[in-house]
Amino acid sequence: MTQPYSVDLNCDMGESFGAYSLGHDEAILPFVTSANIACGFHAADPAIMKRTVRLALQHQVAIGAHPGLPDLVGFGRREMAISAEEAYDMTVYQIGALQAFVRAEGGTLHHVKPHGALYNMAAVNPALAEAIAEAVYRVHPEACLYGLAGSALISAGQKLGLATAYEVFADRTYQPNGTLTPRRQPNALLTDATAAINQVIRMVKEGHVRALSGEDVAIQADTVCIHGDGAHALEFAQQIRARLQQEGINVQAGLRTPTA
Amino acid sequence: MTQPYSVDLNCDMGESFGAYSLGHDEAILPFVTSANIACGFHAADPAIMKRTVRLALQHQVAIGAHPGLPDLVGFGRREMAISAEEAYDMTVYQIGALQAFVRAEGGTLHHVKPHGALYNMAAVNPALAEAIAEAVYRVHPEACLYGLAGSALISAGQKLGLATAYEVFADRTYQPNGTLTPRRQPNALLTDATAAINQVIRMVKEGHVRALSGEDVAIQADTVCIHGDGAHALEFAQQIRARLQQEGINVQAGLRTPTA
Amino acid sequence: MTQPYSVDLNCDMGESFGAYSLGHDEAILPFVTSANIACGFHAADPAIMKRTVRLALQHQVAIGAHPGLPDLVGFGRREMAISAEEAYDMTVYQIGALQAFVRAEGGTLHHVKPHGALYNMAAVNPALAEAIAEAVYRVHPEACLYGLAGSALISAGQKLGLATAYEVFADRTYQPNGTLTPRRQPNALLTDATAAINQVIRMVKEGHVRALSGEDVAIQADTVCIHGDGAHALEFAQQIRARLQQEGINVQAGLRTPTA
Amino acid sequence: MTQPYSVDLNCDMGESFGAYSLGHDEAILPFVTSANIACGFHAADPAIMKRTVRLALQHQVAIGAHPGLPDLVGFGRREMAISAEEAYDMTVYQIGALQAFVRAEGGTLHHVKPHGALYNMAAVNPALAEAIAEAVYRVHPEACLYGLAGSALISAGQKLGLATAYEVFADRTYQPNGTLTPRRQPNALLTDATAAINQVIRMVKEGHVRALSGEDVAIQADTVCIHGDGAHALEFAQQIRARLQQEGINVQAGLRTPTA
Repeated sequence: MTQPYSVDLNCDMGESFGAYSLGHDEAILPFVTSANIACGFHAADPAIMKRTVRLALQHQVAIGAHPGLPDLVGFGRREMAISAEEAYDMTVYQIGALQAFVRAEGGTLHHVKPHGALYNMAAVNPALAEAIAEAVYRVHPEACLYGLAGSALISAGQKLGLATAYEVFADRTYQPNGTLTPRRQPNALLTDATAAINQVIRMVKEGHVRALSGEDVAIQADTVCIHGDGAHALEFAQQIRARLQQEGINVQAGLRTPTA
Repeated sequence: MTQPYSVDLNCDMGESFGAYSLGHDEAILPFVTSANIACGFHAADPAIMKRTVRLALQHQVAIGAHPGLPDLVGFGRREMAISAEEAYDMTVYQIGALQAFVRAEGGTLHHVKPHGALYNMAAVNPALAEAIAEAVYRVHPEACLYGLAGSALISAGQKLGLATAYEVFADRTYQPNGTLTPRRQPNALLTDATAAINQVIRMVKEGHVRALSGEDVAIQADTVCIHGDGAHALEFAQQIRARLQQEGINVQAGLRTPTA
Repeated sequence: MTQPYSVDLNCDMGESFGAYSLGHDEAILPFVTSANIACGFHAADPAIMKRTVRLALQHQVAIGAHPGLPDLVGFGRREMAISAEEAYDMTVYQIGALQAFVRAEGGTLHHVKPHGALYNMAAVNPALAEAIAEAVYRVHPEACLYGLAGSALISAGQKLGLATAYEVFADRTYQPNGTLTPRRQPNALLTDATAAINQVIRMVKEGHVRALSGEDVAIQADTVCIHGDGAHALEFAQQIRARLQQEGINVQAGLRTPTA
Repeated sequence: MTQPYSVDLNCDMGESFGAYSLGHDEAILPFVTSANIACGFHAADPAIMKRTVRLALQHQVAIGAHPGLPDLVGFGRREMAISAEEAYDMTVYQIGALQAFVRAEGGTLHHVKPHGALYNMAAVNPALAEAIAEAVYRVHPEACLYGLAGSALISAGQKLGLATAYEVFADRTYQPNGTLTPRRQPNALLTDATAAINQVIRMVKEGHVRALSGEDVAIQADTVCIHGDGAHALEFAQQIRARLQQEGINVQAGLRTPTA
């Protein structure tokens, strides 16, 4: 009999740059099952990408491309008025660059997850979402597209027949319509680790999340985003991994079934 | 009976950037057989790369990655004291980025030719040459490595079993040891188009070039570099293509046999 | 008796980059009275800036800093979600960089005009406008701030006591509220050169512009923006300069009086 | 009666970038007397520059521009084959950018010290040295030029009548000709803090340094470079500052007399 519940733990990695170090990749890798590796636009350089791909392979963690906006100084977090075609172009480029390091090390690219402002824009802008999904489809159709659960990006991927993974956040609160509470609002963050982990457990086991309004909202949780920087990143990764196992939830990366 | 002589005409392409236009790609493509496409470090951006790959495929021209130093303002022409590992990393990255556009359009990457200062350094520095060849080998071992005839880069490629193409220059003069006369010396350039074309014909048919000193030097000419910018670029491409055909020389791109 | 009417003709210049050439600076300089020189973020590099400053001084044209968004590949034309503080920081940086070249050549910085998306955002976003005006005020309070006539940027400059110049466009149509017709709308552009010039003459002499709706709108025209690229840029510069002189309008750069 | 001995303690600062943090500027500022602030080419961005200038002014530390090569990923440490004119251009640009932040905060730029590979190249290449000195002279002739004691950069500055400061290193060993032992050689570094401090004391008080060969070499020490990163940076800054005071050596930044 297969395990009844399973979920993937993903973490953004390889976000250092040149002389600059960011995150705790080596420490966190044992606790996650997929790594989203920066591709040189919002973070990372070729040396960092090679090193991070090697680390991920050593830890047998699924490797994803993590393309971002061309804004190193803003870490890809500032929205830019790019066209859908520009979104396509920059996604193709970055997937290819990362894929070359994966191939050079004998691995396989498992997924693609846009970063920061590109992720947020693709969640709500169908034209950008379709362009990004098209880039994945044309460069590496076997890849799984990670996107915010219920987002335009997920829909765009499914329309093309891509495997998709619904991403949820442990430490963010939700609105009655299933979207994240915007960061600029109070109560956007769940700062208590236990509450955050409980939220994830419930998403995985029951398919629901308690919105800030108090009502329950249906949500599908294929993959949970863990933050790799911050003072308590490692501790939280350890805790959530342990709790998921205690709850009998299988933690693994894996291609989701395409809709059609 | 197969044609006795054949040679490839290659040209650097896709060197525009953002709002900036450079070269005459569309006009020159009908006259060359392989295109070396910039990968975003010394020139080009993702939109330019996509457009150039599409143009090359339309003209059925062999597509090569043209990786360069990370020096956009210097167009990759200023030598930088990079380590062999950095050369490897930047080559892997750039090949991958271009390859993604080629794959997205249903094509195949045919060759790799380093650009500018990276090309020159790889011609004489075995450690850099080996790093670049290793990058090609690990990312796309079917690719042909283009390098200066007789260079360290060619040797490094052959050591790994890569197909290689010996590149010669129509408009440069040669030294008695088979190397190019450095640009800073007088007489480095053959400014007369007919003389330049005659030099190529002789390289292809006789395997010799007349050095500046007057003596003949043995040289192998698999591929000839045509410049795509400058006032007379198009005219010269037309002339050399026509003369090669008159001389019964087959003009085509094609993988050279690996040494072993 | 002084001339009754006067206006400044400004043009964006120094927008080349590295090996890339853009615009016709030398040809257009004889016909304009102020040059907005790119500062390395959306276009230009240090060599281009030096060369352009020298050219402007030779032609006795007023020199302005033309700061833009940090988006070379997008030529500073894509809006970015920058904070007011980031707008302040990037404006200080770019004014300083250009001012150093002006000082090195014995000149004086005359004005500041934001470029592209930064100009457009500063026209309607008071927080960005105040940040940019503050940057000008703190780095070079003698500078004149060029902004769209009636914009938030002009107001912000006047609040700080900066000299300001109301900028109008020859080849753009206007809305009944005095703003430009957005480029994405049909009829946004006046393609007929004579109509464009007539529009300017009327703005300068009568202080009115005919809106697309047919009604007259009051507008102040201190400086007219001339485009430096495009096939007819030079021809148009010559024509408008000649017509302004025929009409007895003095063409000169000059600090406008601060409001208070 | 004035203090018989005095020396400046300088430290590279403001080397963070965007989301990336580097160094311990705030902790070290109380112990140094001059700060070399990165200008956005090898490190730093406009926000970092503003913050660092403010910090330096709060600690009443002399502010210097620290221009570097345009190589963020290499942190300006990789030599590049730039022309003297390019060195001039990039130095003018970077001094100007930093000076704008200094002026915006009501301060004065005190010195200029090239960074990394630019510093090393300017120490031995007279053409680059003269270009950099010329840039300082034309943009801010009151600035003091910091350079390796006995270097081509110091000579170039003095030829133009610039104030110069002879820089020495606490933790590097010296050759019999007064140059630093290259880093790639064993014994290039003095790893013992006490030995490093003793070397400085002797340079300041006696004007000599013991070369690796054992012989004494004459050296002038106007300013000592303290490293701001690394595990023991802060501790070393405290120790050397304390020892200099114990030895009755006045620690202060100050313009050196021009030679002529």
